[in-house]
Amino acid sequence: MALVPWACCPWLVLLCACAWGNPKPVDLQTKDVRNCSSSPQYLPVTVVNTTEKLTALRQQMHTHNLSAYIIPDTDAHMSEYIGEHDKRLAWITGFTGSAGTAVVTMGKAGLWTDSRYWTQAEREMDCNWELHKEASWESYEMAFRGSDRELVSIISNLVDLVWESERPPAPSQPIYVLQETFTGSTWQEKVSSIRSQMQKHHKAPTALLLSALDETAWLFNLRSSDIPYNPFFYSYTLLTDSSIRLFVNKSRFNSETLQYLNSSCTGSMCVQLEDYSQVHDSIQAYASGAVRIWIGMTYTTYGLYKVIPKVRDAVAMIRYLVWLEKNVPKGIVDEFSGAELLDKFRGEEEFSSGPSFKTISASGLNAALAHYSPTKEFHRKLSSDEMYLLDSGGQYWDGTTDITRTVHWGTPSAFQKEAYTRVLIGNIDLSRLVFPAAISGRVIEAFARRALWNVGLNYGHGTGHGIGNFLCVHEWPVGFQSSSITMGKGMFTSIEPGYYQDGEFGIRLEDVALVVEAKTKYPGTYLTFEVVSLVPYDKNLIDVNLLSPEQLQYLNHYYQTIREKVGPELQRRQLLEELAWLQQHTEPLSAKAPHITSLFSLLAVSTLVILS
Amino acid sequence: MALVPWACCPWLVLLCACAWGNPKPVDLQTKDVRNCSSSPQYLPVTVVNTTEKLTALRQQMHTHNLSAYIIPDTDAHMSEYIGEHDKRLAWITGFTGSAGTAVVTMGKAGLWTDSRYWTQAEREMDCNWELHKEASWESYEMAFRGSDRELVSIISNLVDLVWESERPPAPSQPIYVLQETFTGSTWQEKVSSIRSQMQKHHKAPTALLLSALDETAWLFNLRSSDIPYNPFFYSYTLLTDSSIRLFVNKSRFNSETLQYLNSSCTGSMCVQLEDYSQVHDSIQAYASGAVRIWIGMTYTTYGLYKVIPKVRDAVAMIRYLVWLEKNVPKGIVDEFSGAELLDKFRGEEEFSSGPSFKTISASGLNAALAHYSPTKEFHRKLSSDEMYLLDSGGQYWDGTTDITRTVHWGTPSAFQKEAYTRVLIGNIDLSRLVFPAAISGRVIEAFARRALWNVGLNYGHGTGHGIGNFLCVHEWPVGFQSSSITMGKGMFTSIEPGYYQDGEFGIRLEDVALVVEAKTKYPGTYLTFEVVSLVPYDKNLIDVNLLSPEQLQYLNHYYQTIREKVGPELQRRQLLEELAWLQQHTEPLSAKAPHITSLFSLLAVSTLVILS
Repeated sequence: MALVPWACCPWLVLLCACAWGNPKPVDLQTKDVRNCSSSPQYLPVTVVNTTEKLTALRQQMHTHNLSAYIIPDTDAHMSEYIGEHDKRLAWITGFTGSAGTAVVTMGKAGLWTDSRYWTQAEREMDCNWELHKEASWESYEMAFRGSDRELVSIISNLVDLVWESERPPAPSQPIYVLQETFTGSTWQEKVSSIRSQMQKHHKAPTALLLSALDETAWLFNLRSSDIPYNPFFYSYTLLTDSSIRLFVNKSRFNSETLQYLNSSCTGSMCVQLEDYSQVHDSIQAYASGAVRIWIGMTYTTYGLYKVIPKVRDAVAMIRYLVWLEKNVPKGIVDEFSGAELLDKFRGEEEFSSGPSFKTISASGLNAALAHYSPTKEFHRKLSSDEMYLLDSGGQYWDGTTDITRTVHWGTPSAFQKEAYTRVLIGNIDLSRLVFPAAISGRVIEAFARRALWNVGLNYGHGTGHGIGNFLCVHEWPVGFQSSSITMGKGMFTSIEPGYYQDGEFGIRLEDVALVVEAKTKYPGTYLTFEVVSLVPYDKNLIDVNLLSPEQLQYLNHYYQTIREKVGPELQRRQLLEELAWLQQHTEPLSAKAPHITSLFSLLAVSTLVILS
Repeated sequence: MALVPWACCPWLVLLCACAWGNPKPVDLQTKDVRNCSSSPQYLPVTVVNTTEKLTALRQQMHTHNLSAYIIPDTDAHMSEYIGEHDKRLAWITGFTGSAGTAVVTMGKAGLWTDSRYWTQAEREMDCNWELHKEASWESYEMAFRGSDRELVSIISNLVDLVWESERPPAPSQPIYVLQETFTGSTWQEKVSSIRSQMQKHHKAPTALLLSALDETAWLFNLRSSDIPYNPFFYSYTLLTDSSIRLFVNKSRFNSETLQYLNSSCTGSMCVQLEDYSQVHDSIQAYASGAVRIWIGMTYTTYGLYKVIPKVRDAVAMIRYLVWLEKNVPKGIVDEFSGAELLDKFRGEEEFSSGPSFKTISASGLNAALAHYSPTKEFHRKLSSDEMYLLDSGGQYWDGTTDITRTVHWGTPSAFQKEAYTRVLIGNIDLSRLVFPAAISGRVIEAFARRALWNVGLNYGHGTGHGIGNFLCVHEWPVGFQSSSITMGKGMFTSIEPGYYQDGEFGIRLEDVALVVEAKTKYPGTYLTFEVVSLVPYDKNLIDVNLLSPEQLQYLNHYYQTIREKVGPELQRRQLLEELAWLQQHTEPLSAKAPHITSLFSLLAVSTLVILS
């Protein structure tokens, strides 16, 4: 899954009117997007009416004496994915994409989002809202800086005040303990390790504050399901050398879990439970002393490398691909029902805990929107005449997966084959790269782009993101972004080049790769990737002659690995049709060698001459 | 030439004692470096006695009530290369490398420098000085931050006070006008263009302050020779919408130049000359008003692309390489005399204005020191049994050059050939890369490293730096560093991968490349490099079988270009021996193709069978 390109600030309020650029109109190609400049205005059925909501919000702004109000896309934990309870931006705008910022003034309402979501926003927002493309946001920020406007934060959230009874309730489902077989260390070991790091740290922090939800979930080996696809629960942790304070809704623990947390004692290895709502006051009280609070953690490395969930995930994917191959030509599959079936296949796998994010199941031109997801109401039929892009993943107690494959069941165009093959070459070139330890991913990600660049093609998203261990499918700060930390042995990252032809098709090939030590001819600490996703690419879309001998060799070796790891599991489960499909789709590929062929012909002629 | 990896702060003073790490001893392999731990201490002849200088400096520190004193490696203009008048660091430490920082306390004296200079420092400093490697400097800075120590700047420079009569005088040679044929625009055009940029800038600066020496030299198309290899003069410029103030030693202009600068009038296109020493007070007076000063400029792009100086520079290089090939086997060439001859050959070329930096002429193990330069007293003999690295360049009125070649006249080892070929592949892979416009060099420089990484080799310096137009040979901010600006059409950068085997040999292959538009199969704004250095690599060191067909094709095309551009010039000058050498060294290379060969044999056998 492609990375979110920009993070956002928490709720902030503008005390005076913002400079408002004229938004550029989005090209309207089909009737599924709004047209606010036609008369009468055209609104597709997917649009939400926001007139009353905006009126109520502006009433609140007037009461609070505010000229403008900013609504970001995150929650109080800066989560990338948020729960229903926190979906303020979607409620007020109608726009359900995962990245965006809304600004409401007395006269205008605008949404800023990036190119992945422009079409989606035009499908979902009514004409109360202007769509501002990313570039406009930057210039707006720029204009804001030099002015005498002032950003202030206020305690109450105005959207919540307007949202009222319509707002989904805060989660209350149980918080459960992840079994020890699925965790690298106990929470006590992790606490001790962090305390030891704090002592050694040159800034000598007295406390560590965990505010991101995956950090607390990771620390205590606890999980729940407050946010779809993300097995977390609303919480904060304040850890000092002598105490562990967990801010959470206490009623969500059963007696066993309370015991697991040593929550009835007061020593340095006992967890003091405090109410979630108290975190602001408690931290403020603590911070008023002579203390130094360390905020945030590094990424959650894996204790050990487990290939097992990857095999199970491959089985689900292969079952789906085989099913598609049979049913798409019958014209009975659409993007939404297909995604549902894949989710069902994944759900049947051992230790499954649902998808790791909303499945991106996109046919034809929809795949050119990098983050499109179909809905029950709005989706496209799959066809042998179109490419189909499937970006999906599963949460398992023993791991998180994320994989993208693009397929074509008919006759792809020469350009589609070329673009697909160049994306594949990018995936291969980055995956097989040998690089020095502790290098930044940003410095090597261009290897995934070179084959595309070479003919004037590119893709507009990042090349990969870290992946959690039954945690976030996007786990910062591992990855290939400029803000990512340096690559280290044991990290998991996605590798996902793509190509998007607007209005026509989209290609993405994503695998999860483990950073491993490389054996080099000369001694040195070098790393490389071991791809742990185990699903073959679409040979119907590969132009073998574009691959170098080294790339071909790498690909055939990868296919051999898939056969060896997934084949026996399919056999064990008597999934014989899938096994046959796997064998067929992992046949070694070889380039036609025109040179050798013509040489043969030449020699054959010579031979005939000699003979005659 | 390799980039300087870290810039330094201006003179700063520590008010209390610094934390002082124990420096790690440098490995001593030969008797040409000091040994401060032996008894008696061993000091090579290249060492400078600094005892008296340090005593005098500490006396000054005592007078000014200072606990520690920092001596950086730059001048008041933050120049990378500095004049004799400003070589405080070299005078007080004995160390003549171009990057380093000294700190003197009452009890200790230490020099921080990076790995390029460790051996050189051990050759030049006496035992009054501790050598701190780069890592120690970082931890020292770190330790300093959290403490109650205070950095203050003082008006007088204590080293100057101690230096006294020994200090070389400030430069007084004439400042001359660069002829219009060698400049892209007149100074009036440049002034107008900058004023227009200032008006459009979102911060609306009221003035532009040029403090780097190449900025003022570029603006007025003026040159002099205050700093070796850099045709600049000490100066500052303060440019506003209505005035142009040039701070410089006025007596260095003749009447023609004064007229050229319109220095007798007072309009907005007249240059007001003020004394160099007045800059501090004048800027302070100006800045006290309601003004906004824009500091620094962007890089100085070329007005037009001139290949001519590159051809002349190639002629000088080829004359030298031919001469070496004949004379090295006789045992009569050393690093220093060789460098002198090359400088002489360059000096004979049209529009020559001397070398663009001190020639790096390094044989055998000396080449493993990336920035080694021989001296009259201390140098090594060139031999057919060793590799020889030559990194040099020329200043010409119509351009600046910088090129590195590495050669071997005997039988290189298999490892030397492999390392050389992998460095060459890196140079080729980066040079032929096609990449989107406005990308950062940092993102693509790894293409110059991949072939080395692949077998566990690497180099410790940057991959290239911007190059000025009869200005600095190192022109920030163009290049492949993380601080460089994005690549744009018309920029010149060096491409210079290398490999250094400590105590044995060093390889670097450096070319100057122009950023040009790439023609891609599909439309889009893409860039690539056009290599403008025109000297062949050493075929004695190339293992052709390591090159891919594409790399080989690129190399042969480059050789064809060299033949076409340099050949006629050699012919014109009747340098027939050099012409023959050029033809021989640019013969197209081809890989032995074991596959095809064995196929031939196989078919030959079959043919025989049929015949018999």
